[in-house]
Amino acid sequence: MSAIINDIEIIKAKATKINDVDFDNLKFGHVFSDHMLECNYKNGNWEKPKVVPYQPITLDPSAKIFHYGQSVFEGMKAYKDTEGKVWLFRPLDNYKRLNISAKRLAIPELPEDYFMEGLKALLEVDEDWIPQNEGSSLYIRPFIFASGNGFHASPADAYKFIICTAPSGAYFAGEVKVLIEEKYSRSANGGVGYAKAGGNYAGQFYPTQLAVEKGYQQVIWTDDNTHEYIEEAGAMNIFVRINDTLITGPTSDRILDGITRKSIIELAKSEYIPVEVRKITVTEVVEAAKNGSLKEMFGAGTAAVISPISGFGYKEVDYDLPKLDNTYASFLKKCITDIQTNKTDDPFGWRYSVK
Amino acid sequence: MSAIINDIEIIKAKATKINDVDFDNLKFGHVFSDHMLECNYKNGNWEKPKVVPYQPITLDPSAKIFHYGQSVFEGMKAYKDTEGKVWLFRPLDNYKRLNISAKRLAIPELPEDYFMEGLKALLEVDEDWIPQNEGSSLYIRPFIFASGNGFHASPADAYKFIICTAPSGAYFAGEVKVLIEEKYSRSANGGVGYAKAGGNYAGQFYPTQLAVEKGYQQVIWTDDNTHEYIEEAGAMNIFVRINDTLITGPTSDRILDGITRKSIIELAKSEYIPVEVRKITVTEVVEAAKNGSLKEMFGAGTAAVISPISGFGYKEVDYDLPKLDNTYASFLKKCITDIQTNKTDDPFGWRYSVK
Ligand SMILES: Cc1ncc(COP(=O)(O)O)c(C=O)c1O
Ligand SMILES: Cc1ncc(COP(=O)(O)O)c(C=O)c1O
Repeated sequence: MSAIINDIEIIKAKATKINDVDFDNLKFGHVFSDHMLECNYKNGNWEKPKVVPYQPITLDPSAKIFHYGQSVFEGMKAYKDTEGKVWLFRPLDNYKRLNISAKRLAIPELPEDYFMEGLKALLEVDEDWIPQNEGSSLYIRPFIFASGNGFHASPADAYKFIICTAPSGAYFAGEVKVLIEEKYSRSANGGVGYAKAGGNYAGQFYPTQLAVEKGYQQVIWTDDNTHEYIEEAGAMNIFVRINDTLITGPTSDRILDGITRKSIIELAKSEYIPVEVRKITVTEVVEAAKNGSLKEMFGAGTAAVISPISGFGYKEVDYDLPKLDNTYASFLKKCITDIQTNKTDDPFGWRYSVK
Repeated sequence: MSAIINDIEIIKAKATKINDVDFDNLKFGHVFSDHMLECNYKNGNWEKPKVVPYQPITLDPSAKIFHYGQSVFEGMKAYKDTEGKVWLFRPLDNYKRLNISAKRLAIPELPEDYFMEGLKALLEVDEDWIPQNEGSSLYIRPFIFASGNGFHASPADAYKFIICTAPSGAYFAGEVKVLIEEKYSRSANGGVGYAKAGGNYAGQFYPTQLAVEKGYQQVIWTDDNTHEYIEEAGAMNIFVRINDTLITGPTSDRILDGITRKSIIELAKSEYIPVEVRKITVTEVVEAAKNGSLKEMFGAGTAAVISPISGFGYKEVDYDLPKLDNTYASFLKKCITDIQTNKTDDPFGWRYSVK
């Protein structure tokens, strides 16, 4: 069956898998919707995207994705409000960041309408896959990878841009204990840390495994030179509350410019929470933990929204954070998810209607 | 057709592509032999490898290789001597390094016999693909990537180890002009630079493109913190000759422990060439270029063996290297390739007979 939405060709799946899905018990990113968007780059051009059935990808063994890690991705969510209307959150920022990442990885940049119109067509076709339950959403994964062939260590001549979606529940179950990293790092000055490049994530797995073996769930990344500046929390930006001030590090070429992070900064300011964007040292966080002025730490990112940190380890010592009744984390999480799911006004213009 | 070599099952290709190949005009890594080795990791174990026809790989769109860059590789060569005997060069070092890389990328380590016996079986089946011409060889590309599915940013539960081969000529055509990098970097302290991880290479493409636009062929990577230490030449280790001393940087977690590099160090020492393994500063190289004591620079790696550098750019100034009649580069290249291709004795025990 074939149709056209927003000028995008649609090739429908023969059957739906939706009846096999338990929408009340969704994990994160394990079940995939019936369709995907596919768009190929060949001969110097991105070809028009199509919505096609979710289906396997076939590549030559010499495809550069297997050898040289030339890939970038994004993470977004679609929400269905109580009236069944579908919303995105600042999707153009994801589009722009995808191209920023692509440029750094020598991947050809993507036209805006291929991304936006393609995404909207995909969401229209798979609208039934967008969960309406509290705390659930349709996780959206746009990605581009090198599909061109050859062992020469140079950019590919062909790429695939794909958007897959996965109805998803919470990313983390419960609170998170973190380890402040003293040895490993995720990114270099002048490196690709500010890009959502595949290789950045694989590099985190082993240090994270070591932290997990020690009883932590995540690593707090520090700068690779001194390990004295706190940079990110796993694959999230990090916020620290000392007394009543909310602090987050500045973005740099080592740190991803997170959309949740910048939204939290604006939201907090509009709620008269004192916010500082400045370098955070490990020393001050440890001191603040010792003298009781460290009230909260949390990670911020699309997948987990806000992920409260219950304690951290540093140089073989564990520091617990206080259990407050009213946290910035829960307040800001409610503010942001209420905007995302159309439960409140959106003075910032962040919500984006899909139809 | 099915057979067993070295206890490895062989499934033969229906037809050979070898008659389409012009062995006198081989490029690098563009033509692939009839077969490949394939080995799958599932349920906590590497399954026995098989030699199968060179064929496409089919993956789910959520396979982690597309999203999180979880992949490592090796680069080796097989040589055929004038009597038709087939040789490898220090293959166990490639096997060991593959596992060092795998560990850092949270990929399960591979048993030695799967690698070695699998490789030997593959080379036996595709023996006719190993070029005998001077300067040509069969480039061998072992690689492992995450084939397991899911959007959770964590190690995959399934992997594929594959060896493909490509009859190849020279990697670079002619001499190479390089740019000493002042802004971008390839690796962080505590990062994955010492591993042959796919993502390291994609990260080099964009800075290399910028260098190419300025008229250079390659980038000389410097440390990400000060850009004052010379670390690698593109995807090669770097050697500098000042007066009669050959200098190369020490390996570290930012630098690949190259097999060509360490062989050159041993070879040079055995030939009474003064060798220093120590940090090299950009300042001393520029000074040496200015006062005439900089005699040679070259890159060292399996693909290009030794790649002489004709000049370098730094802070908008170009420095030419002298054109000597007798270079360490050409002398050492002859020493090493003579060993590789069985034209001379091998006092080091580096040569490895395949049968
Ligand atoms: C390394 C890293 N930091 C931070 C974030 C948070 O970014 P965002 O809020 O745009 O999802 C992400 C992605 O989710 C990330 O991968
Ligand atoms: C980054 C890098 N440095 C150096 C080398 C040289 O290593 P080898 O001599 O083992 O090929 C390689 C691989 O060829 C490499 O990828």
